[in-house]
Amino acid sequence: GAPFDALMSLDPETFARESRAVINFLAGYYRDVEKYPVQPEAMPGCLRTLLPDAPPENGEQMDVILEEVWRHIVPALTHWQSPKFFGYFQANASTAGFAGEMLSTGLNVVPFTRAASPAATELESVVMDWMGKLAGLPDCFLFSGGGGGVLHGSTCEAVVCTLAAARDRALSRLSHEGILRLVVYASDQSHSTFQKGARIVGVPRSNFRVIPTSAASSYGLTAASVRDAVEADVASGLVPLYLCATVGTTGLGAVDPVRDLGELAREHGIWLHVDAAYAGSALICPEFHEYIDGAELADSVSMNPHKWFLTNMDCCCLWVASPAALTSALSTNPEYLSNVTEESAAGAGVVDYKDWQIALSRPFRAIKLWVVLRRYGGAGMRAYIRRHVEMARWFERALEADERFEVIAPTRFSLVTFPIRPWHEGDPGDDAVDALNRKLLVAVNGSGRAFMTHFMVDGKFVIRMAVGGAMTRMRHVQDTWELVREKAKEVDRHPEN
Amino acid sequence: GAPFDALMSLDPETFARESRAVINFLAGYYRDVEKYPVQPEAMPGCLRTLLPDAPPENGEQMDVILEEVWRHIVPALTHWQSPKFFGYFQANASTAGFAGEMLSTGLNVVPFTRAASPAATELESVVMDWMGKLAGLPDCFLFSGGGGGVLHGSTCEAVVCTLAAARDRALSRLSHEGILRLVVYASDQSHSTFQKGARIVGVPRSNFRVIPTSAASSYGLTAASVRDAVEADVASGLVPLYLCATVGTTGLGAVDPVRDLGELAREHGIWLHVDAAYAGSALICPEFHEYIDGAELADSVSMNPHKWFLTNMDCCCLWVASPAALTSALSTNPEYLSNVTEESAAGAGVVDYKDWQIALSRPFRAIKLWVVLRRYGGAGMRAYIRRHVEMARWFERALEADERFEVIAPTRFSLVTFPIRPWHEGDPGDDAVDALNRKLLVAVNGSGRAFMTHFMVDGKFVIRMAVGGAMTRMRHVQDTWELVREKAKEVDRHPEN
Repeated sequence: GAPFDALMSLDPETFARESRAVINFLAGYYRDVEKYPVQPEAMPGCLRTLLPDAPPENGEQMDVILEEVWRHIVPALTHWQSPKFFGYFQANASTAGFAGEMLSTGLNVVPFTRAASPAATELESVVMDWMGKLAGLPDCFLFSGGGGGVLHGSTCEAVVCTLAAARDRALSRLSHEGILRLVVYASDQSHSTFQKGARIVGVPRSNFRVIPTSAASSYGLTAASVRDAVEADVASGLVPLYLCATVGTTGLGAVDPVRDLGELAREHGIWLHVDAAYAGSALICPEFHEYIDGAELADSVSMNPHKWFLTNMDCCCLWVASPAALTSALSTNPEYLSNVTEESAAGAGVVDYKDWQIALSRPFRAIKLWVVLRRYGGAGMRAYIRRHVEMARWFERALEADERFEVIAPTRFSLVTFPIRPWHEGDPGDDAVDALNRKLLVAVNGSGRAFMTHFMVDGKFVIRMAVGGAMTRMRHVQDTWELVREKAKEVDRHPEN
Repeated sequence: GAPFDALMSLDPETFARESRAVINFLAGYYRDVEKYPVQPEAMPGCLRTLLPDAPPENGEQMDVILEEVWRHIVPALTHWQSPKFFGYFQANASTAGFAGEMLSTGLNVVPFTRAASPAATELESVVMDWMGKLAGLPDCFLFSGGGGGVLHGSTCEAVVCTLAAARDRALSRLSHEGILRLVVYASDQSHSTFQKGARIVGVPRSNFRVIPTSAASSYGLTAASVRDAVEADVASGLVPLYLCATVGTTGLGAVDPVRDLGELAREHGIWLHVDAAYAGSALICPEFHEYIDGAELADSVSMNPHKWFLTNMDCCCLWVASPAALTSALSTNPEYLSNVTEESAAGAGVVDYKDWQIALSRPFRAIKLWVVLRRYGGAGMRAYIRRHVEMARWFERALEADERFEVIAPTRFSLVTFPIRPWHEGDPGDDAVDALNRKLLVAVNGSGRAFMTHFMVDGKFVIRMAVGGAMTRMRHVQDTWELVREKAKEVDRHPEN
């Protein structure tokens, strides 16, 4: 390689030429990704052994680097953009999401305060109101209604910030010793981020309540079970702090009853957070609005456009009804960030987003979500969501029509969960059934023709098929159904064949 | 606009065409950014009034959207990529950093566990060892030496994670009540993120010690002053937990004595974190290695390639000597993330980066830093850093040679800090001096020809000029010196003129 000329690092012609090479690389990747095994065979250490121990002393050409990405890195990736990726939840890429991220990355401003790049802060406030309206949130979460929104990188960050806000609001009454008495509530279906978040903000591990759910409520919480837990804690001198209601759980897509939980939370002064990380995208369709009925009783709501809303990683919307509760917990005012010219404006309702998040630095994420909303529009996004819901329901009907399979929880959005039933006469025992289901999942994923993940419900292993890839068409879902039936036959032959 | 066809969101031809339009837009921006006022005149609400209250119902064309970015957004940005941006610390963009971010965003994998995209996790481990070696870190922070590194989005995240690790290590001896007795130490020059981080993890606000520094130690901590504070706390029954040593403080670029603080920390079982957010990039040059002498006594080190290392936002390197301390505080093992095929490997030293950070989701940041290191090489990056150091020293010498100015702290890296002295005969009083300095900074920034920020040191207002933009050349620094002299004459005329 030739020594790098430091003056060339943002030379416009070099920038345009090398960036176009990357665009061509990625366009080729999207053209071919369907042909790759979705999950690679990649033994631990596979890449480390291929790469040198230290960076090169002299720079190398971009085409050499891209060639190596092609040869060494792509073959050891799990292809989240494959139309046959049905694992975890999808992470949508799109042309508009990518364009928005390029603008954010290219302009590369750092809008920690409004003054540090005014348009970036203002666009974020605008786009959070847009998104809140599109998702049918109550006015109390919009800037125009006294609340407001911020873009984080992840739900976990949103959870840590709202937990810290709730904690500090409680400790302002209790003094700091009170931290030992604070209790956080979630269901056995809630995302692990709530437990992790509670630990991070200093809630004792023994004060995290996992409330059981069951098939009777389709794995949603019941207000009665939360009330029992809350009242028992109050009776023991503990202080109920924070409750998570999930709209679209990770394991099964279950929905907690937001209004019932909101009423309970209000009664006990508990901070209610509505986590709609995955299903929040579906809320833009009126037919799903019922699932956030009662959201005006919540303190905060979050959802991830980087899952199912064509917004490339990372992008999490957090709305709060009381921005002051958030900023009391998270604000700092070091001198090197104070604005030498606009000090009077700071008091006049100017948003400084550094006080709405963990970090000081932050990227210009708002332009990404704004480009997505502009390029695809409300109608376009609803059509996109409904297409996946329809595919998931097709798959669910196929499972229901086949005696070998069971559907575990109703497919409310685009996640289908199912186990296979063994052919054996009589009761084969739970362990054997689980082993068969594991074997089926390993066979499906091992084929390279689709990728799914799993979940345990009531102690039983079930397969999760999350529909929602940007390039997923009905034919991929249909092919995957054929694949599942084929592998089912292989892993557990009918006794008569 | 035409309704969006959901099938087109990753169509390769549309992707390539619209992405090229964004590339051309950005290349044009880099070509012209020098001509724009670095800081805009943008009154609060300026953008909100230009944009509609809700997103469009039908999608719009990319050229329409880019035209609006050009017309409404660009004029209200502070231009961090301007070669005349000398505020805060720089946020470097570069062709390679941008290319790496495009690959991360375009492939859009989510490597929370190794199994979720093996190459992404493996590349991160490799690149963290590369970067650690390049910065001259002791082996104990490399995977190859029993430690390891992770890429976060920000120093704040690294601080919260290491504070949580230190806290849980301490609480495993003390029980949770001990959280009320934990004490965190930093200097009056340390970044506000330490105070914020300590609050987030539940350390009582009254247990954060701000140790004063002074000109006598060039605003670095002295081990003696920290020892006094630690011993006083121990005598009061408190538990010293965590100490921050900064290499290159935000306000003045000061350096704390890592070895002395490390010895003290070891003696008292305190977690020592070395924050080299800004100056860490300079550590790749041997002439700066002295500043991390003793780092093998630290528990963790962090630095931000997104500041001065040609790596677009966001990218923070965190290294720890004990990965187990980090993962004990941050690990979760929900069923939906367990790997159905490789369960045995998980015990065998496989890194699952979700347990090294706050969030579960994470972008493929490693490929960005890897492209930067490959494209520019160790020699190229050293040349880049030295060019800025030289420019900063030129500016410092110009200040020293002019009786109107003072240099407040030695320019160790590329940050110069200075006040102007008024012409007045006799002592004008501190307030008048501060007012004059504020006036000078407002005049410089108001000209649009450069942008700087300020700091307060020993109660006095000083101007900060942080050199380090990717497009900054010596002529920009020289022009800025002329601008400062010109504005100095305007805001405070010589009595005889």
